Amino acid sequence: MIGPDIQQAQSLELLQRMLDGDERALSKLITLVEYSPTVAAEIADHTSRRAGKSHRVGITGPPGAGKSTLVDALTMLLRSAGHTVAIMAIDPTSPFTGGAVLGDRVRMQQHYLDRGVFIRSIATRGASGGLSRSVRDIANLFDAFQKDFILIETVGVGQNEVDILEEADTTIVVLTPESGDTMQAMKAGLLEIADILVVNKRDRPGAEALMMDLEGMLQMSSRQGEWHGDWEVPVLSTQSDHGVGIAELLESIKQHRLAITESGVLNQIRQQRRQAHFIQLAVEEIRRRLQIGVSEMSGPLGLLFSKVLDGELSPYSAALSLLEDREALAAVLTRR
Amino acid sequence: MIGPDIQQAQSLELLQRMLDGDERALSKLITLVEYSPTVAAEIADHTSRRAGKSHRVGITGPPGAGKSTLVDALTMLLRSAGHTVAIMAIDPTSPFTGGAVLGDRVRMQQHYLDRGVFIRSIATRGASGGLSRSVRDIANLFDAFQKDFILIETVGVGQNEVDILEEADTTIVVLTPESGDTMQAMKAGLLEIADILVVNKRDRPGAEALMMDLEGMLQMSSRQGEWHGDWEVPVLSTQSDHGVGIAELLESIKQHRLAITESGVLNQIRQQRRQAHFIQLAVEEIRRRLQIGVSEMSGPLGLLFSKVLDGELSPYSAALSLLEDREALAAVLTRR
Repeated sequence: MIGPDIQQAQSLELLQRMLDGDERALSKLITLVEYSPTVAAEIADHTSRRAGKSHRVGITGPPGAGKSTLVDALTMLLRSAGHTVAIMAIDPTSPFTGGAVLGDRVRMQQHYLDRGVFIRSIATRGASGGLSRSVRDIANLFDAFQKDFILIETVGVGQNEVDILEEADTTIVVLTPESGDTMQAMKAGLLEIADILVVNKRDRPGAEALMMDLEGMLQMSSRQGEWHGDWEVPVLSTQSDHGVGIAELLESIKQHRLAITESGVLNQIRQQRRQAHFIQLAVEEIRRRLQIGVSEMSGPLGLLFSKVLDGELSPYSAALSLLEDREALAAVLTRR
Repeated sequence: MIGPDIQQAQSLELLQRMLDGDERALSKLITLVEYSPTVAAEIADHTSRRAGKSHRVGITGPPGAGKSTLVDALTMLLRSAGHTVAIMAIDPTSPFTGGAVLGDRVRMQQHYLDRGVFIRSIATRGASGGLSRSVRDIANLFDAFQKDFILIETVGVGQNEVDILEEADTTIVVLTPESGDTMQAMKAGLLEIADILVVNKRDRPGAEALMMDLEGMLQMSSRQGEWHGDWEVPVLSTQSDHGVGIAELLESIKQHRLAITESGVLNQIRQQRRQAHFIQLAVEEIRRRLQIGVSEMSGPLGLLFSKVLDGELSPYSAALSLLEDREALAAVLTRR
C-alpha cells in the first residue's frame, strides 16, 4: 500500500506525537512495529535511550489459573495508587485453535475507558521477525511512553513464551490447586524463573497443600544464587476475582524491585538483555545476507556449496569450511 | 560421564554397526544424535551421502484427528507390501502438560515386535539444538539405514511443527468433521503445505460436507504453482480404525512421489533442504562465536558495544555498524 519511505516518515511523525503523549499515535506505532521489523529498527533507535523507567512484570501460568483476572485486579490497584499501566497479553496462536488461550479479554476492557491503562494483545502469528522481538520492541515503546508498570501476561506453554519472560524485571508464576501436574511444571523450569509464586483461587480445596509443596520445593532448590541477589522467593495466595491478596502481591513486586535495584541485579539483567538483543539482531541480519549470498559464492566455496546441494558433501563440513575462510566469510556477509 | 573423544569413537563404531543393519546400534545413535549436536555433526558427515532413498511422509492435523491410528494402519499396509518403515512421533512438550499430546502410543507398540518397523518419539524438550535439527538428523539416520518409508507424525500446532514438515517429501493433513475451526486452520497455512488432504472418521456426521468444503477451498487457491509441479491435491476419506481408505491413501502417496520425481520437484525440494540446513548450521555457529566474541571486542566496536550495554546506543544501530566493519566482523567470527 505505502512505500517504505512514506512509512518511515509516517512512523517518525507518529513517534513524535507519541512522545508528546498521544495515545492513538502509540497504538498505531505498536501495529507498525509488530508487523514491520524495518520500522521497528527505525523506532528502536529513538526509544532505546528513553527506556528504563517502567517496571516490567511478567505473569505466567497454566490456562485456567486466572491470570487475566489477576492482571485485572492488579491493574485496578495500581491505578488507584496513581500509577499508569500497560498490559501486553501474549496470545500463542495455533493454526488449529486460532488462539484464544488467553480467554476472555472482555472483562478487562473496562480499563479501556481509563486513559491510564493501555491494553494490547499480541498474537504469535502476526509477529513478523519473532514474537520475542515484537514483545521487546513494544515494551520499549510503552517504556518511552512513560508507563509506570508494564504487565506482560503469557501462557508459558513453550520455549517462545519462556523467552518472552526474559523481558520481565519481576516474574510471577500463577498456579491453582486445580491446575494439575504443578510439580512437573515446576520441575520443568518454572521454579527457576519465578520471582514470586502465587497460588490463586485460594478458597479451593488443596490450596494450602499446594503452598506447602511449593515452599518445600523452594527450600530444596538453590534459588539464592548470585544472579538473584538475596531475594527470597515468596509464596503468596490470592483470590483475584474478589481482589483478595492483591495488595500483598503488589507490595511483594515493589520489594522485589527494590531488592534487585539495590543489589545491582536489575542493571545486570538489563545489560544482559541489551547484549542478547544486539546478538539476535546481528544474527538475523547475517542469516538474511547468507541466504542471499550463498548461491553467489564463487571459487572453492562455490564448489563446496554445489557439492552440498548435490548431497555429495555434508552441510556440517561445508558450514565449518565457510567459517574457516575469513576472506570469503567477510565477502558474503558484508554484501548487502 | 564419558569424554567427547570416547563418545566420538563410540559413535563411529555404532555407525558402522548400524550400516551393517544392527537395529540396536541405530537406536543408540538416535539417542546420541538427539542429545549431542557434536555427535550429530560427526554422524551427518557419514550419513548425508547415503541418504535420499527413503520416502519421507509427514502427517499432521489437530489433536484427536486420529493421526496415530492412521499412521498405524498405513504402517500395517506398507509392511504387508514388504516395505520397511520408520515412524517418528514428534511430541510438542509443554512445561504444563508434560507433553502427551500425541496420546496413546501403546497401540502402536504391536509393531515393535516387527523388525521391519522402527518407532521413535521425539520430545521438544529433549532435543538439544532445536527440534527440526533433531528431526532432520534422525531422518537421515533412518534413510542411511535404508528404511523405505519414514513417517513423521506431528501435531501442527506451531511454527516449529510446521518447520518439521519441510523434511517431508509428501505431506498429509488429516482432519475430521469434529476437529472444529477447520476452515481457519486451512486458511492459516495448512492448505499450502498439504500434498494430500484426508478426512478421517468419515462415518461421522459432516464428513461429506467437510470434503466438499475442502474441495472448494482447493479450487479457489492456486496450488498448481511451479513448486508443486502439476500435482493436484486430492481430498481422500478414511476410517482408519477400520482400515478403510488406507489403500487409496498409499496409492496417492506413491502417485505423489512419482509426480514430484518426474517433474524434478523432489530434487528441487532436496536441494532447498540442504541449502537451508547449511545456512542454519552456519548461522548457529556464528551465533555461538558472537556470544563468546562480543564481550572481547576492542577498538571502535568495543566502545560501540559498551554503549549498547549502558543503553546509550540502540542495539539496532550497533548491529548494523558491526556488519559494516568487514575486518572486525571477520575477526570476531573466525575466532573459535
